[in-house]
Amino acid sequence: MNESQKPIGVFDSGIGGLTVVKAIRNILPLENIIYLGDTARVPYGTRGRATIIQFARELTATINQFNPKIIVVACNTMSAVALQAIVAAADVPVINVILPTIQAALMGKPKSLGVIGTSATMRSGAYQQMIAKLSPSTRVHVQACPLFVPMIEEGMRNGPAAHLIAQTYLRSLKKERIQSLILGCTHYPLMRSTISKVIGRDVLIHDSAQATADTLKEVLSSKEILKKNGRGNCKIFLTDDPSWVKGLLPSLIGSNKCVVKKITLSAI
Amino acid sequence: MNESQKPIGVFDSGIGGLTVVKAIRNILPLENIIYLGDTARVPYGTRGRATIIQFARELTATINQFNPKIIVVACNTMSAVALQAIVAAADVPVINVILPTIQAALMGKPKSLGVIGTSATMRSGAYQQMIAKLSPSTRVHVQACPLFVPMIEEGMRNGPAAHLIAQTYLRSLKKERIQSLILGCTHYPLMRSTISKVIGRDVLIHDSAQATADTLKEVLSSKEILKKNGRGNCKIFLTDDPSWVKGLLPSLIGSNKCVVKKITLSAI
Repeated sequence: MNESQKPIGVFDSGIGGLTVVKAIRNILPLENIIYLGDTARVPYGTRGRATIIQFARELTATINQFNPKIIVVACNTMSAVALQAIVAAADVPVINVILPTIQAALMGKPKSLGVIGTSATMRSGAYQQMIAKLSPSTRVHVQACPLFVPMIEEGMRNGPAAHLIAQTYLRSLKKERIQSLILGCTHYPLMRSTISKVIGRDVLIHDSAQATADTLKEVLSSKEILKKNGRGNCKIFLTDDPSWVKGLLPSLIGSNKCVVKKITLSAI
Repeated sequence: MNESQKPIGVFDSGIGGLTVVKAIRNILPLENIIYLGDTARVPYGTRGRATIIQFARELTATINQFNPKIIVVACNTMSAVALQAIVAAADVPVINVILPTIQAALMGKPKSLGVIGTSATMRSGAYQQMIAKLSPSTRVHVQACPLFVPMIEEGMRNGPAAHLIAQTYLRSLKKERIQSLILGCTHYPLMRSTISKVIGRDVLIHDSAQATADTLKEVLSSKEILKKNGRGNCKIFLTDDPSWVKGLLPSLIGSNKCVVKKITLSAI
């Protein structure tokens, strides 16, 4: 098959990575997308390093079978903890969400930058180290928000309980008077309105979706493997019962015209 | 090996089943216990039926390798959804948490009984059907509390956020003026004080731990395989990095003298 006709492979621990798929479909509507979400084992961000790496290798082996032209790791936890293992197991270029997100956030030259994400992402130091490298004078304040992913997967994105938990997690960042906040987890855009209300409307919020989609387009373009004909489709494969996700597709990716199927991961 | 000298095998999706282990050690201090917790894939209660059954079969195959004399399914979700698969895969008798818990709660002859648990447990109807069979005149009110397990595993058991989420989940049960409440998840005793405060001090709370331990003792005694000599030990095997659990052992099972190790589940 002509390289440009091959699909883009996207994977995540659950459904959060679909926020990245939505951004990709907006700017690359002709591309075919294969999405793989490990809903049988989500969340990853509370697990240990070795477990996350093992799971990431299984996802990579599975997405390889779809013969993608490029792989997007639409998960900050895997981007932070398992990128090396994914690159080693992948047969094609790999885009991760962390570098594009940081680059986009630094464009505004914030003096004080907050980052929120899963426990594993924050513990890895991936954001802290990359920001220090790209902009040593930026003060970085990080906060793990381990309950946000289960809350989002349970549909508890707004309302008083979500508000109170967000207040608990974001208290220290508010004190630091951050100017910008990175949502360092692809689930978090799904509760952006609660986060924005709590952190303050004057704080600029950056998520991984748009920046990652922009980077993907640049890489495909520079390699001259953009698909230029036909209409793009999107196939979603999940490791747990996918029936409940179908109803969420219009709100998650702005369309319900995707195939959604259950899949068993490749053993490695 | 003499049957009575063999260990008791206990398994759960995570660390919640250790509340059952604590009760077992209290009344059967001479017994050796093997505990298996699937912390790499917890929680189970939000997953689909086929996934829970698959995971339960893997746990059963793994605990079989320790040659136990009896297996305790210290997890309401697996007891509700996967018991048949576990019994089929086990080489020895299997105790589940649901029947003993219901029997204990019905001793007080409540007219109105509440049951809380995971989404999968509530959806299965296991509690509703068993209570209707044993006490048709008892009115049963159930409520799924899907965020309780992640909150407990994250250490957010008390405090204002836990209180507010408990209020949200328990509102309908409060309206029904239940007399007794079954904690239909082995994690929930770990936030008993919050639950009790919210539901009201006059509501009698029953958990699975004591009732299941009592039933276990009866079964071992009737089969004449109680261990009657030496001191019992407890070995804990977890599928994710176990280091953080060690510090919790005194609060979870009243001792830190257990071996805690990582384990890879048997493929089936």
